[in-house]
Amino acid sequence: MASININYLNLPGDYLFLEISRRLQAYAAKNPKRNIIRLGIGDVTQPLVPAVMSALSAAVLEQGNNETFRGYGPEQGYAFLREAIASACYAGLGISAGDVFISDGSKCDIGNFQEILSPKSRVAITDPVYPVYADSNVMAGRAGRMAANGRFKGLIYLPCTVDNDFVPQLPEERPDIIYLCYPNNPTGTVLSREQLSQWVNYAREHEAIILFDAAYESFIRTPGIPHSIYEIDGADEVAVEFRSYSKSAGFTGLRCGFVVVPPKVRARGLRGKIVSLRELWSRRQSTKYNGCPYIVQRAAQAVHGVEGQRQTSAVIASYLHNAGCIRRAFESLGLPAVGGIDAPYVWVRLPEGTNSWQFFDALLERVHIVGTPGVGFGPCGEGYFRLTGFGNAQETQEAVERLELFSL
Amino acid sequence: MASININYLNLPGDYLFLEISRRLQAYAAKNPKRNIIRLGIGDVTQPLVPAVMSALSAAVLEQGNNETFRGYGPEQGYAFLREAIASACYAGLGISAGDVFISDGSKCDIGNFQEILSPKSRVAITDPVYPVYADSNVMAGRAGRMAANGRFKGLIYLPCTVDNDFVPQLPEERPDIIYLCYPNNPTGTVLSREQLSQWVNYAREHEAIILFDAAYESFIRTPGIPHSIYEIDGADEVAVEFRSYSKSAGFTGLRCGFVVVPPKVRARGLRGKIVSLRELWSRRQSTKYNGCPYIVQRAAQAVHGVEGQRQTSAVIASYLHNAGCIRRAFESLGLPAVGGIDAPYVWVRLPEGTNSWQFFDALLERVHIVGTPGVGFGPCGEGYFRLTGFGNAQETQEAVERLELFSL
Repeated sequence: MASININYLNLPGDYLFLEISRRLQAYAAKNPKRNIIRLGIGDVTQPLVPAVMSALSAAVLEQGNNETFRGYGPEQGYAFLREAIASACYAGLGISAGDVFISDGSKCDIGNFQEILSPKSRVAITDPVYPVYADSNVMAGRAGRMAANGRFKGLIYLPCTVDNDFVPQLPEERPDIIYLCYPNNPTGTVLSREQLSQWVNYAREHEAIILFDAAYESFIRTPGIPHSIYEIDGADEVAVEFRSYSKSAGFTGLRCGFVVVPPKVRARGLRGKIVSLRELWSRRQSTKYNGCPYIVQRAAQAVHGVEGQRQTSAVIASYLHNAGCIRRAFESLGLPAVGGIDAPYVWVRLPEGTNSWQFFDALLERVHIVGTPGVGFGPCGEGYFRLTGFGNAQETQEAVERLELFSL
Repeated sequence: MASININYLNLPGDYLFLEISRRLQAYAAKNPKRNIIRLGIGDVTQPLVPAVMSALSAAVLEQGNNETFRGYGPEQGYAFLREAIASACYAGLGISAGDVFISDGSKCDIGNFQEILSPKSRVAITDPVYPVYADSNVMAGRAGRMAANGRFKGLIYLPCTVDNDFVPQLPEERPDIIYLCYPNNPTGTVLSREQLSQWVNYAREHEAIILFDAAYESFIRTPGIPHSIYEIDGADEVAVEFRSYSKSAGFTGLRCGFVVVPPKVRARGLRGKIVSLRELWSRRQSTKYNGCPYIVQRAAQAVHGVEGQRQTSAVIASYLHNAGCIRRAFESLGLPAVGGIDAPYVWVRLPEGTNSWQFFDALLERVHIVGTPGVGFGPCGEGYFRLTGFGNAQETQEAVERLELFSL
């Protein structure tokens, strides 16, 4: 009989969102008339902006016409979009269109990228963390089993809590691969130029590779916070950057993202040979991917135009406004929070002794608001709670008013 | 320093289409006024049909509207499409909507599916073969190095040549995984019910898994030829079926496909435990994939409607007409060919002593037609040549007329 990839047996259950949904359904069944406000999942609520709609509609028309129909495109993406990204997002940072690989989203890119690196690589992730970094490494056999403390035995953890101001410290044990996500999901925090430089310097010194998830880059408002890791000198030798149109332009249902792999990012092959990851990734995509839909790439291109920028910025500003209101509402309840300034996420610190599922239940039952228990993002998330600014403005305002009446 | 996945070093160069493009460019540079007709790559040329265009356009409008906007969809696909497929393609075959997983195309599904199976699995492929089956297994470490004969040392090969009427014989050595593609790319041949039953029975007896690529299913015209492997009794215990909208509805640029994983298809886990592949695949997709765009799934749904079926059937008929003309043109030159009846591909047998690159050059230089050298699909493809019916009707007719003047 054929055998499975037994690494899959080490995966944790899809516990978090299933359990949220179970508790939510149980509550809704008992209280059918309650207006429950969902601020748990990081999905956008506003429709595509007019500039994107008009590019998308025009591209759709091309696909119905004999003269303008396009079949297979390049697996790495169309030049028009790779060039638009290189000049709109990386001007002056030494990134060329050939370093940009278009995809159907960051989750796929981040999940798949580890595949071109050795299965024996040592991997570091923050705690709390976006679960895909851990799970894709579990599947590849790098993580081993989960211990009783909720951590995989084979991974190196970088705690981010109030004790270190949510800034991960350099690891004691050297990793080959380091996952960093800034602005951060779930904490909503950012790294200063100095803090990010520390990581780039560490990676250069220790010849590690940083997989930098910048999916929330467009939410940065504080001057001086780096938008790209390539703003840091030498990052183009050690860092791969992932970006997405999901949150910046409402593409969660349309699907487009990209990864930047500068040619100087390299790793060891056989017999001391050094291999450029850009060529490996290109080969991986040519073999197992067939390109992002043409019409979606045209829609993404429109995001970088003048109108596209103006319109998507307005949407982001509204989500940030929501996040700020949520943060202040919790603070006025005496619950300190981070995030919500340069990121759509607000990370609330719960009172000593309250765990994150208890808080979930209390918030649901007393004010009918759904958030995400911090422990779902890792053991260091226990005692915290995530809320998002992605709700619609009216519902979020209503949630804020309800929070005024809330007490634990 | 981090290390790469060294299995990638065993990949062959992207030789075939690069070399075709190199020779084509060299010829075009020397003969700038020649009208070169490209019948090499399996890409469609006709635009999306009206029923698909109208569903796609309507779905695009939904995405610009506050009330109808959709963000993240289920990673496994929307129920409306999974249900449409189960009833349109698998009525009476015991396949339910929950067994159908929607994706952005068959290449991705077939490239990724091996990942949930043990890296030690023994893999059988036909020769000639669609290169993705081999290359994705090279990347996973199952194929080892390529020997001087052009075959990977770790794979089991099933030759398909004129000597066995292009029907692969059951292997002597037992594989865990068997890749079959019918209607076949590149030979254009099909398997009868009896021939396919032999493979299903073999897989059941030897507890092997068949990965059945049915991307060209909609081209089958001969009565009695199975459209799905699930028409064979017991196939739902051993077979996973891959299908695509690329060739059946011109989605090569729009990107949609699906894979069917019946719950009875199982493999060994640890300590004798048996695991259903359907759950593993679902987990793989939840972690590393974020769903096919909503608008594309609506477009795919329209393919299964009355108008969608009528319109796409007409397009397929025209491609089959092209393929038939090409096949007869070669036959009248005294070059026997298979395919072109239930498949868009025509597989021409070259005269003794003519290799497939020599034939490529002769066809290009004398009648300015581009095809694909058979050796690009494996050592058993040497001495053969692939042409496709996907060109437009007028150009294909012109190619046929030129072929009347051709002699080796």
